[in-house]
Amino acid sequence: MRSEELGETLLPKRLALPIFASDPLSSVAYATGEILLVLTVGGTAFLYLTPWIAAAVVALMAVVVMSYRQVVHAYPSGGGSYEVVSKNLGANSGLVVAASLLVDYVMTVAVSVASGVDNIISAFNGLADYRVVLALAFVVLLAAMNLRGVRESGKAFAAPTYLFIGGILLMVVTGLIRVVFGDNPQAPTAAFGITPEDHKDTLAGLGLLLLGLRAFASGCTALTGVEAISNGVPAFRTPKAKNAATTMAVMGITAVVMFVGVTVLAMTSHVHYVENACQLTGITGDCNSYTQQTVIAQLASTFLGGDNSILFYFIQAVTALVLILAANTAFNGFPLLASILAEHRYLPRQMHTRGDRLAFSNGIIALAVVAGGLLWFYQADVTSLIHLYILGVFTSFTLSQIGMVRHWNRALATETDPAVRGAAQRSRVINGLGAVTTALVLVIVLITKFTQGAWLAVVAAVLLWLMMRGIRRHYDAVSSELAIEDPREESAKPSKVHGVVLVSKLHKATLRALGYAQAFRPDTLEAVTVAVEKEATDELKAQWDSYEIQVPLKVLDSPYREITKPVVNYVREYRRTSPREAVAVFIPEYVVGHWWEHLLHNQSALWLKSRLLFTPGVMVISVPWQLASAPRADRPARRAPGAVRRGEPAPVKDVPEPQKI
Amino acid sequence: MRSEELGETLLPKRLALPIFASDPLSSVAYATGEILLVLTVGGTAFLYLTPWIAAAVVALMAVVVMSYRQVVHAYPSGGGSYEVVSKNLGANSGLVVAASLLVDYVMTVAVSVASGVDNIISAFNGLADYRVVLALAFVVLLAAMNLRGVRESGKAFAAPTYLFIGGILLMVVTGLIRVVFGDNPQAPTAAFGITPEDHKDTLAGLGLLLLGLRAFASGCTALTGVEAISNGVPAFRTPKAKNAATTMAVMGITAVVMFVGVTVLAMTSHVHYVENACQLTGITGDCNSYTQQTVIAQLASTFLGGDNSILFYFIQAVTALVLILAANTAFNGFPLLASILAEHRYLPRQMHTRGDRLAFSNGIIALAVVAGGLLWFYQADVTSLIHLYILGVFTSFTLSQIGMVRHWNRALATETDPAVRGAAQRSRVINGLGAVTTALVLVIVLITKFTQGAWLAVVAAVLLWLMMRGIRRHYDAVSSELAIEDPREESAKPSKVHGVVLVSKLHKATLRALGYAQAFRPDTLEAVTVAVEKEATDELKAQWDSYEIQVPLKVLDSPYREITKPVVNYVREYRRTSPREAVAVFIPEYVVGHWWEHLLHNQSALWLKSRLLFTPGVMVISVPWQLASAPRADRPARRAPGAVRRGEPAPVKDVPEPQKI
Repeated sequence: MRSEELGETLLPKRLALPIFASDPLSSVAYATGEILLVLTVGGTAFLYLTPWIAAAVVALMAVVVMSYRQVVHAYPSGGGSYEVVSKNLGANSGLVVAASLLVDYVMTVAVSVASGVDNIISAFNGLADYRVVLALAFVVLLAAMNLRGVRESGKAFAAPTYLFIGGILLMVVTGLIRVVFGDNPQAPTAAFGITPEDHKDTLAGLGLLLLGLRAFASGCTALTGVEAISNGVPAFRTPKAKNAATTMAVMGITAVVMFVGVTVLAMTSHVHYVENACQLTGITGDCNSYTQQTVIAQLASTFLGGDNSILFYFIQAVTALVLILAANTAFNGFPLLASILAEHRYLPRQMHTRGDRLAFSNGIIALAVVAGGLLWFYQADVTSLIHLYILGVFTSFTLSQIGMVRHWNRALATETDPAVRGAAQRSRVINGLGAVTTALVLVIVLITKFTQGAWLAVVAAVLLWLMMRGIRRHYDAVSSELAIEDPREESAKPSKVHGVVLVSKLHKATLRALGYAQAFRPDTLEAVTVAVEKEATDELKAQWDSYEIQVPLKVLDSPYREITKPVVNYVREYRRTSPREAVAVFIPEYVVGHWWEHLLHNQSALWLKSRLLFTPGVMVISVPWQLASAPRADRPARRAPGAVRRGEPAPVKDVPEPQKI
Repeated sequence: MRSEELGETLLPKRLALPIFASDPLSSVAYATGEILLVLTVGGTAFLYLTPWIAAAVVALMAVVVMSYRQVVHAYPSGGGSYEVVSKNLGANSGLVVAASLLVDYVMTVAVSVASGVDNIISAFNGLADYRVVLALAFVVLLAAMNLRGVRESGKAFAAPTYLFIGGILLMVVTGLIRVVFGDNPQAPTAAFGITPEDHKDTLAGLGLLLLGLRAFASGCTALTGVEAISNGVPAFRTPKAKNAATTMAVMGITAVVMFVGVTVLAMTSHVHYVENACQLTGITGDCNSYTQQTVIAQLASTFLGGDNSILFYFIQAVTALVLILAANTAFNGFPLLASILAEHRYLPRQMHTRGDRLAFSNGIIALAVVAGGLLWFYQADVTSLIHLYILGVFTSFTLSQIGMVRHWNRALATETDPAVRGAAQRSRVINGLGAVTTALVLVIVLITKFTQGAWLAVVAAVLLWLMMRGIRRHYDAVSSELAIEDPREESAKPSKVHGVVLVSKLHKATLRALGYAQAFRPDTLEAVTVAVEKEATDELKAQWDSYEIQVPLKVLDSPYREITKPVVNYVREYRRTSPREAVAVFIPEYVVGHWWEHLLHNQSALWLKSRLLFTPGVMVISVPWQLASAPRADRPARRAPGAVRRGEPAPVKDVPEPQKI
């Protein structure tokens, strides 16, 4: 029954591809544009570099995909780069990867949403003034959906992702056929000239190299999200590793075909795409209010029937949708990584265990707030945001490939079977190549992007790294503080238990607390009330007698209408005179069904409880009274975001209803 | 000992005056200006109305002070208007007063801070661009001080308030002497002409009446805060009522003298003060960037030696300081009123009892946020804010005077002693006059200010009124739900208690929980752990055996790494099979000393606990383990804001230190 259930939830390849690939494939929507943007700094003179840079990106993509296929086989548990690096290069390096990935999740949200909005604006120019508002609205929407517990589902992802792939391929094929058959349509921006930025028209030598490297670094955005599958191996059907590796290959090939297709069409149709619209010459009106269409939009318009064709709107719609889905993956991936980090005690422990909705809610809100802040600060400008993006990606690429090389070294040290050795040696070569290549890219990205904003990502990652190390140190300290030295001595029991039932009024909840306390039969038992108002206390005493309650009632004085202090004093005084007795304080508590009822009930009890717990030898017993509204709130936690990627089944309503006494 | 202590804390009249009067006296800083502002709508033509309007305000002040002296004598418990109206006109009318007063506290903060900043800018013109920032900074400062628990103290209030009174009186006396002896210095703005606003230069008849009424309504700001003493009678030394009434008279006379003095000087020196600086003719430069000095500043400059004299800066400094102190009184008065409302169950119960710092913190933050929002929205413009202010003040004036008339009617219905009857009849005449007068002013304010912003205050008060009624209804519903019908049946005890100790690891805290549970001797006892990871569970079992722990350990399955659900299911299942047994779940809990440690510990336990409490027949026992850092946080709550006004003594460190076992 249970394994069947699991089987149903696990993902077939056709559903796994869209879930894991919406993020990497969606990069196609902006990667080509980012390359052109850098090259046009020097006018149209350096656009001849485009194919070379695209080729380098494709080669890099092939290397990275091949490398990660090795990871999938070697670490099918789904820990991804973090696990690989932690196991092979040590905890601190693993933490570097973790910090980089956390930063990257933020950037995935920011960049994907910004690019999605860009594509919406390309179709509806009138929305250009609402760029930031739209972007923030999408972030809020995604956060709200994930807070409400809307689950990722393979089917929901499948349609938009396959429509996006299909749409782009349709555009590429149509375009190539038209070009091959001599009809060579030109992009709307082909007629515009481009003014080079100052001093950039004489680029040569080192300057030209730097320009090329910067364009290449920007193009590397096409690789973001490639590692997602390596984190999600447990979600695949068996044979998990093989299926995951196959899906990864399909994803890589699809991404390359789409990227190359888009880039080739952008070249033949002479798309002119610049960082600052005022570089364009020949546009009518004020260049500051001119909104550039994205490369995808220009190509769709050029090759699929112009700015008003149904296909143009279709391409823009699925592009925007896939980008928003890509942003959503971060909302799922973030808690997943956080959960693993929490397991290793680098993040608060409760993030590890399922069922604590609060922990996930905090993560989702934090992600949304930081991503929203960046979108607002950078005015939802894709290019500015991308400067912060790729650094973390390549940090984790590089470290994980180095880790894999070490992994194979270790495996080869003990392995004797020649066939296995051969496979391992081949894998080591692939990962070694991956390590060298991605390290090179990392250096290029650092050099070309650091001052443009990447420093901010570095600072954020360093702070996260320090925080996680601090948390781990704290947990270690507590752990050694709690370690048992002498089990016999430390299990010493108090000789007696003195029960104290706190009473403010006599009602059903108080009677229940008294009854439970009596059933417990502590060695001694008394009820205690604080005399805040004389009349109320007198009434309580009279009722106490008339109900013939067998527990003696003690009245504590409170000249200043305080409740906490007299009770705490009384308990501490009791402990002082009877240090070998434990004091058990019974507090009647209301269980409520609406969130606002929490504000109206139990606050004094909670405060009192937290104060009492400072006293050794005191335990606090909540005796609940379920108000009529309580069952409203009696529901198990929603499923945590990221569950599908982790291969966890859908929740079954398997908590039995409570029964009334 | 205790009464001595109380005696020391109670306020002598000389300290009570500054504490309670800083708010009403500070109104002198803006009342005259607000009258002039309205009259100059018609150019200089209608300034001849000034003395008549000032006289009306003085008469009103006399009536209100006399009326509230009756309140002080009749209701020395310090409930003020809210108590008077609730007791005499019913709970719903009382709630109208309460809602008005809550709105007024917000407006006191906003108006006083705005006016304080205005006076600072009058001395340092360069700060004009930072008006809103300065105002918000002061609100943040006041909120922070009150959150930190900085107490009001008579002495801290005394110096600025007396210096303010002394300074203004010095200015008035100096000015009058100079005028009487023929030296008639003119204000810096006397030379400016005033352009009437459109269509206002032909005012006559009804239009003129309306202008006069509007000016009068604005001048009534001089009365804000007058009722403060009637809320603070318990803080006075005995004979409390008499001392409070005397202080009230002194306050009224001081306020009248200051207000009349300032107004007379403003007239003789021809201060021209307008709503929009562009009405002024003859100023140099752009009128939009011209900053008008406040009336106080103009007078100080005119009569005390010009814009650079030490006395000018002194007057501006004490004026600004007293206004900020007036804003601070709202931070003290708000929790005081909230506490009384909570006692009557119109606000969350915990606001009533002392020692719950959280409740006060929320109140302080709410007050600061709303006042800050208004300051930001109205750009810290005193005049705009004042439109929202006086409505609530006069609503509570009117209702409380009507209530007092009803109070005397009742007293006279049973009283036979002719001397007492005579006194009551005199009081009734005074309060009747007060009721009629303030009702008239209320109508005037409503008519002249409603569309200018007062509607917002009305909406806010209505919403507060509805919320408080809703809270009361909820508490009443819970109260009847909990009412005991059959004490014998409802005290039925469970037949047995089954103890369950939750264990995740074996450490000192677990051993303590086991020891306490054993000391309690429930009828049956077991330890329960959730198998999240197999290795950890195996290790736990091995330790369990090696430590020879006598309690049997049960392992619950958890295929999806959840903790909460398996435990809840287990407990509910137990209750299903043994419905007459109560289940006592022992949870080891850490007591920590730093706020951030809360994020790292106990979160899973808290969530589990809240889920368990939904099941009837289950009680949850927190067995605390005090971490080494815990004593840091073991301190009683800070004293609540408003304590001095309530006559509560300073806190004594009387909670004994906990002892180690």
